Order: sequence, then structure tokens, then C-alpha cells
Amino acid sequence: MQLEHTLKNPYAHEYQLLIKNILNAPIYFDPNQEIVYRGEKRFTYATFKKRVHKLAHMLSALGVKKGDTVAVMDYDSHRYLECYFAIPMLGAILHTINIRLSPEQILYTIDHAEDDVILAHTDFLPVLEQIKGRLDVEHFIVLCDDEKMPPTSLHVKGEYEALLDKEPDFFEFPDFDENTRATTFYTTGTTGFPKGVYFTHRQLVLHTLGTLSTLGSAPHQGNFRQGDVYMPITPMFHVHAWGLPYVATMLGVKQVYPGRYIPDLLLELIDTEKVTFSHCVPTIMHMLFNSPKIHEVDLRGWKVMIGGAALPKAMCQEALKRGIDMFTGYGMSETCPILSIAQLTPEMLERDDDAQSDIRIKTGRSMALVEIHVVDETMQSLPQDGAHSGEIVVRSPWLTQGYFKDQKNSELLWHGGYLHTGDIATMDEKGYIKITDRMKDIIKVGGEWVSSLELEDIINRHPFVKEVAVIGINDDKWGERPLALVVKDPAKPLSDKELLLHAKEFINKGIMARESMLLKIKFVESIDKTSVGKIDKRELRKKYSH
Amino acid sequence: MQLEHTLKNPYAHEYQLLIKNILNAPIYFDPNQEIVYRGEKRFTYATFKKRVHKLAHMLSALGVKKGDTVAVMDYDSHRYLECYFAIPMLGAILHTINIRLSPEQILYTIDHAEDDVILAHTDFLPVLEQIKGRLDVEHFIVLCDDEKMPPTSLHVKGEYEALLDKEPDFFEFPDFDENTRATTFYTTGTTGFPKGVYFTHRQLVLHTLGTLSTLGSAPHQGNFRQGDVYMPITPMFHVHAWGLPYVATMLGVKQVYPGRYIPDLLLELIDTEKVTFSHCVPTIMHMLFNSPKIHEVDLRGWKVMIGGAALPKAMCQEALKRGIDMFTGYGMSETCPILSIAQLTPEMLERDDDAQSDIRIKTGRSMALVEIHVVDETMQSLPQDGAHSGEIVVRSPWLTQGYFKDQKNSELLWHGGYLHTGDIATMDEKGYIKITDRMKDIIKVGGEWVSSLELEDIINRHPFVKEVAVIGINDDKWGERPLALVVKDPAKPLSDKELLLHAKEFINKGIMARESMLLKIKFVESIDKTSVGKIDKRELRKKYSH
Repeated sequence: MQLEHTLKNPYAHEYQLLIKNILNAPIYFDPNQEIVYRGEKRFTYATFKKRVHKLAHMLSALGVKKGDTVAVMDYDSHRYLECYFAIPMLGAILHTINIRLSPEQILYTIDHAEDDVILAHTDFLPVLEQIKGRLDVEHFIVLCDDEKMPPTSLHVKGEYEALLDKEPDFFEFPDFDENTRATTFYTTGTTGFPKGVYFTHRQLVLHTLGTLSTLGSAPHQGNFRQGDVYMPITPMFHVHAWGLPYVATMLGVKQVYPGRYIPDLLLELIDTEKVTFSHCVPTIMHMLFNSPKIHEVDLRGWKVMIGGAALPKAMCQEALKRGIDMFTGYGMSETCPILSIAQLTPEMLERDDDAQSDIRIKTGRSMALVEIHVVDETMQSLPQDGAHSGEIVVRSPWLTQGYFKDQKNSELLWHGGYLHTGDIATMDEKGYIKITDRMKDIIKVGGEWVSSLELEDIINRHPFVKEVAVIGINDDKWGERPLALVVKDPAKPLSDKELLLHAKEFINKGIMARESMLLKIKFVESIDKTSVGKIDKRELRKKYSH
Repeated sequence: MQLEHTLKNPYAHEYQLLIKNILNAPIYFDPNQEIVYRGEKRFTYATFKKRVHKLAHMLSALGVKKGDTVAVMDYDSHRYLECYFAIPMLGAILHTINIRLSPEQILYTIDHAEDDVILAHTDFLPVLEQIKGRLDVEHFIVLCDDEKMPPTSLHVKGEYEALLDKEPDFFEFPDFDENTRATTFYTTGTTGFPKGVYFTHRQLVLHTLGTLSTLGSAPHQGNFRQGDVYMPITPMFHVHAWGLPYVATMLGVKQVYPGRYIPDLLLELIDTEKVTFSHCVPTIMHMLFNSPKIHEVDLRGWKVMIGGAALPKAMCQEALKRGIDMFTGYGMSETCPILSIAQLTPEMLERDDDAQSDIRIKTGRSMALVEIHVVDETMQSLPQDGAHSGEIVVRSPWLTQGYFKDQKNSELLWHGGYLHTGDIATMDEKGYIKITDRMKDIIKVGGEWVSSLELEDIINRHPFVKEVAVIGINDDKWGERPLALVVKDPAKPLSDKELLLHAKEFINKGIMARESMLLKIKFVESIDKTSVGKIDKRELRKKYSH
């Protein structure tokens, strides 16, 4: 008996999962709770909420409306948090620009995302000035810390604080379809051009609830809860700082935004603001561990989720020795990002640091509502025995539906109805995943992706190079750095210094990420091939990555 | 710039929030974790999952398909949990029949819900036999504990275990729209006939995530987390046992189902199975506290959420003395049900038991994604000052969209686009709500509101009073005036004049409106209760209001 037609009630409110609900219906809202910027500025949640409303008024006055795109170039700040809310709450799309890209890449992403307005910190005005002749952007707003607004050749609308000041502190945010796009940003992945991923309000709200359900409910370790003090050390342009500013706001906890990352300042903030939960890539943690100030700060009780690159075991052990609860979170730009977290069972927590580290550096267990399968090439699920390895494919409510204006790669991403991570892993019977390899030819340098294919392309352009393969090699500081294995023309003279100069010429033109500079060269007699004649990177990694 | 049309990707998986995802994508799935029935039967999660698949096969074989309604009459059991999953996962609707209703009312709800199949415990066969001539139901399945299936005049299909046994243990559950109805049940509220509420897959999944986000993330008190041991003491027919079996399954914790409520067995199960989280109405807790066995069981660390009726302060203090973390959860059948939870801040937890109890017995703070407003008669929000009182109206993703086949009451429920709870409350600046009365429990004396709950509280404080209910009675002069129906301790002397003096002492202190002075006292032998053990004010008004 189908009776669904009798169930419509035009009077009932059809609740949409909108970002404004994170702000308006959190778990806890203490109007006096604090949001701190660099230890210098302090705002209450009551003020923060008003500032979100003011920002919406300010953007509306500039003509920003539903479907428009507003970009931000800033360090981790209270301002960025305000943008995380106000821009999508208007129905507009927040484009978080990767400030570490080259000017050419930044131009490409601004153009591709069709940004209408850009809010930029003073430090990034020179980059915008450099490309302004080719920018089709309506308005610029400058974000200053305490300094005065510097002179600029950009046609700027004004300074953020001065503009906010004038606006009323209540904005009537509209209701709209939860499937409205809320955010976009660019991932510098496998191919030449950065690819745009995008997430809807529904996806971000569900990612917040799924993350909170998983992180919140862990009793002993790997948790983020009411009463914590939050400080991100992941750039806010990077996959919504892993979605955790939204989680923190829903929890109503104190939030600390550190601005530009300066190791001593980060440590000082952890100390003075009593930070208890953070997340970062291994490279940042390496910086902190190498700062002399580390010896002055008691880090016991600090919880740190590590992502973006594999957590080295030595780093994890060092952290445990200092009383830090360090654990892996796994995900990627395409996945909003969190898919799995290395949470330990009580039984695992009884093991010694060494044995615990083996689990903490793994990929963990899938979060609430994340369905992870390890499959073979025909998309058949492999046994959950911790031995069979295959590609990780995923279903979840918060995965990008594709790459922006790139149908071909969108189809590849979702081949067979599952999102393909390109990571090779095993899974045990309790769902613990361990990544063993990567399908894609990507090198993660300090959390940033460097394309080995692009580097190969550049090196190949040198007339004396016969063949080249670029792989990532382990590096204590950067996690990975690129190594080019080069077969040169035996008849021609070519030193590694000459070849590096050649490569850096291209890198300096801004074609590639700055991190490509860490390239190393090694001349070899020949390069291993697979049975079908392709370069066998797995074999090369085995030989050279250590 | 509107670019939404470019974002469609037919290859991407459009994730629906379905109940099957709670089972398939939980936070943790340990195949060896246990589900226990009365301490007698033990199933692993791996087996439980297979039984859900078997049940789906069994129902499919009976012809159950999307849109059909399957009803259950059982005590709290592993079987009921299997029905919570298998029935909605087929796209069918689970009707949880209130086994405490009269046969006529049960007939009404079976008929009104249009049940196609009924699964009934042997204890409820007599009720069904009594009404079978008027039942339009296709199949009956009998749920037995260890006894053999009794003879019955019903045309039954067979016994649950025997039928399950024959079925294969993998069923390919379909994907469908998350707005498909998943459950229905009947609330015996204010009017003559029970009213049917209904919830979709989306609503139940979001209720699970919202509850888990809120209960999981509380660090010190009022939490439900990984590693807990769960035992409901709320009938599973009653608003999905407050949704917590779904939460428990998503957490992957050990679950204990107690069957019919026998105080000694409940206490024994808490003890032997090491139960750490439960929920019940005050009446059940009263039964447990009065069982002699209570002195043999260590209840320290047991967390109990109390709902369904106001938590008496004395009960809360008794619980705290025993080391039980007792706290209020607030909601109603119409709201899936949880809206708010009495979670305490660290500062509140430092207070003594007496002061803590004042907060624990309150209505608490709204959960994640629950937007609660306290409004006046024109739907204007009142100040959040802990003083202004008005009706609680709500928005949230998990509120029933109406009453089944009852357009008039659906409209009233959603008058003005908010769900009306009929509860009168105050809210303070941090969002703590305190219910002061039910709309229908408010007595209007000469145009002024008098709270029957407050009057009950005052009268209850007299040591010779066993039970009290205050209602409004018609009065020519005042419109209404309060009447207290009092059950006194038969061993103690107490006149109505003495009790009035006691009450007026409090009233004179200015605790209550002057109009409360018009209180009348009537001693009675007993006070009528509803099927779920609440004071039946409707019945009392019928008897005494003229």
C-alpha cells in the first residue's frame, strides 16, 4: 500500500542542511566563549556571530548574490572563519585560494573558478598586482593585521575591518536547497592544471556531523570534544582546514587561529591559550619538534591529528614520549576531506609506544557514513584479512561530485560508481586500513602535492636527457622530496648541477609549486619497466626511496 | 555567475541517508562484539548482520515490498533490533505497536497504519485473537522465547527463528530516496484517538548523527561513547526506544536487551553484563530503586538518561548518591524524539549534588541541529534571560511532518512553520531550557497563568503526601481554579486545611502567582495513569473538572 501522497504537509518546515545551522543550532553556544587570533585579538562567539552578519551585509552591498564566487587569500585567521560562514550562508561560493601556488597557477584558479570578489591579506597583494592585467574580478578587499593598508595598484574597495564597521549586525540569511554549492578549491594533482573540487552545504554539514560523531565518541584517545581548545595548523585554504573549524564551531569550543605559521608562535599559543586539539601535516610537526622553544612548552594532553602525508613512525614515537596523542586522519581534497581516523581500541591502548605507533601511523578505521572498499582491478571487494591489497574506493555523503568543468576527469574519478582514491591498501576484519602504496605519481612535499609527471616533462626538455622518471623519496623534514632518475645521452656532457639549473628555470617561471625546488638528480644506466613497457615506479621506489 | 548546470556528473554516486548505512558504515564494527538478550542468548555483530539479511529474505518471501507496513509486538529484544533494520531497509515501514494499549486501541492503530504483516510475541497472541475478526492483515509471525509455539486460532505463517533458519544470509538491499518513510507509531495524546507519527530514513539517520554528536562529545557527564555497554529500559515501541538502538549500532558497542521489564532481572543484567548506558522514564527508575536487589548491585558509573516525564529532584539526588550519572533528555513522539539533553559544563560539575540536581532535572540544552525557540502567543521569540516563559517551538531535520492521515492536527502541529511542543519554558543566555509547564497543564485563573507543575512540586514537599496531580476546574468567577488531587500516606494524619496551610506558606513567599491561593484540595485513593505510566490528566479532568 503506497500512502506517501497522504504525507505531504505544506505547513511543516522542510529542514535543509545548511551551513548556517552549524552556527545557529550548535551543541553548545556560550556567548562569552572566545575566538583568538595570534594571541593578539580576542572575540567572543557573540561578537563573531555579529561579524558574520556584518560580513554578509558588506558582501551583499558589493552585489554578491546566490551563485557568485568569493575568493579568500589569507593565513589561518578569525577573518577566514567568518568567511567560512558568511559567504556560503549568502548562497555564494567560497573559493579558498591556495596561496602557495605560483602566480600563474593562482591566476588559472581565479579564472577557472570565475571569482567575482577577492579578499586578500596584504602579503598577497604583490601576487595579485603581478597578474592583475589578466584578472576578471569585480572587487578586491584588503585584509590587514595591525598595519595600515599599503598602497596598491589594485582597484580595492577598502579594508575589511573598516568595511565591516559600517554594517548592521543582523542579516536575514535565506533558506535554500541544501544541494547548493558552498565551497570550491583547487587540487594540484596528477595532471598539468589544478583541478577544482566543490562541496555543497549538505556535504559540509554531514561531514561536520560524521566527523563529530567519530571524533567525539572516542573515550580515551583520538577525540575532539566539548571543552577542548582548538587550533588548526593546516592552511584554511586546504580542504576547509580538514573541516575542523566547522566542527569546532558546532562544539562551541574556544578557537585559536595562528596566522602565518611561525614555529615559536605556534608553540607559545599552545602554551598560553592551553590548546588541546590541532591537526597538521608531518612537515609542520617536524618544524615544531626542531624549534628550541619546544623544550619550554609542556605538550602533554595535546591531541594532534596528522594528515596530508604518511605519519613517520619516529615522529609518532617522539610525540608519544612528549605525552602528545598523535594519530592519523586520512582523506584527500576530493573527499571534504576526512574518510578515516586512527582510533585505538582500549586493548590497543594497553600496548607499548612502539606497538601503538604502528597503529597510529596507519590509515585507521572509516568514519561514520564512510563506506570504504578495498577492491581489485575489476572492482571486486578483496578479503578483509590485512593481507590482500587493492585500491581504496569510497562512498560517503561528502565526496565531490566531480572536478569543476572537467567532465573527463570527473568520470574517471567516479568510475564504476565509487570515488577512486588512487591509494593502495589492505583492510583487516575490524576495518583497520593500511595504505601500502599510491597509484598516482604524486609526491607529497611538506603536505603539498608535486606532480612527478610535470617534473619529468620539464627535465625531458633538456636536449641531453634520454629518459627520466621522477619518484618521491623519504625525507625527514619534508616527508617526501622528488628524485629524478635520469638516463643521459652518453655522448653529451651533463652534470646534475646543469640539469637542476635547467629545471629551476621552469620552476622559477611559476609553472610549478615552489616545493619542486627540492628536486634531487641521480644519473642511472637504465630505468625499470613493467611487462607492458611502462616505467615501473613501484620498483623504482623500492630501489631508491630510502 | 550561475554554473550549477555544469556540476552534474551522472557517474557520481548520489549518497542517500538510509538506515542500512548505519549498519554498513558505522564508527566501529567488531564482528565479535556482542548483542545479548536477557543474559540468555548471545549473538555477535557478525551474526546479527546475517540475521538482518535473513529477516529481509523472509519478509520478501511473504511478499513484503516497498511501501508495505510491517508491525511488531514484542518486548525489548534482539529480534526487535533486527526489525529496526531489516524492515525499513526493504523500503517497508516498521510499525511499532504500543503493546500497553487496550485491544480496541491496538485494533485502531493496526487498521489506521494499514499493517500488512504482524510479528507478535506469544504474550500478545491473546490480544490479536480477541480482535482477529476485524483485522485486515495478511500474515502473522510468532516470536517465541524458549517456549514452543502455543496453539493459536490466528492463521500464523510460522515461528520467527524457524523461518529465519531457512533463509540465505545475504540480501541485496536496494538504494532508494532517503525521504522514504521508515517507521510509524501512535501517540496517545490529548484527543480521543491515537495519532500516527512517521519518520523517514533521512530523519532517523540524522537523528542518529545529531544524538551521537551531542552525547558522544560530552567529556565528563551525560555521554554515550565507544566502549560503553548499552541497555534500553524504554519500550522499543516507544519512539524507536528514543533512537538509541540506532546510536548504539553506529557506535558498535555491546547491546543488552532485557525483554519484559522485571526489576531484579534489570539490575542483574546491569551487574553481570556491565551495562554503562541506559535510558528510562522515572517510573521505571522508581521500581529499580525500590527493588531489594538494588543493595546488591554497584551502580557507580552507570549513565542514565531520563525522559518521558519530569525527573524528580529527589530521584536525581538518590541516583547521584549511588554514583549514577543521571540526566534529563527531552523530546516527544513527534520529534523522533530527542531535542535537548541536560549536559553540564565543567563549572556546573563542581557544584554539590543538590545544585547539580537542579540542572540535571532541567530540560537541558538543544542538541546539534535542533533549533529551539521560546515564543509568546504571536510567535515572537522571548528574551533568553531564564525568566520570560513561553511555548517551546522547534525546527530540526527529524521532526514528524504531520499526523498520519490527519490533516487538521498536522496543520495545528506546524502552525506558523514551527513544530509546537505544547510545553512552556524559559531559556537562559547559554541556551539552558527549563520546562515550567505543559500548555494544557497551565491553569488560567482570572486571566493569569498558574503552573500546575509548580503547585504539584510544593504539595509534594509535604512529608505525608504520596502522590499529587493538579488540574484546572471550571469556576464561575475565575474561569478556572486549581484542584489538587492528593493521595496521602494512610498511616499519617493530614487534613486539607493543613495541606493548604503548607502550600500557602510557599505561595506567600512569592514563589507562585497570587492566584494559586485559590487552590482546592481533594484526597483520592489513586491517580489515573496512561498506558506509558504518566499521570492521565485528561482522564482526571473528565472526572473532576465540573
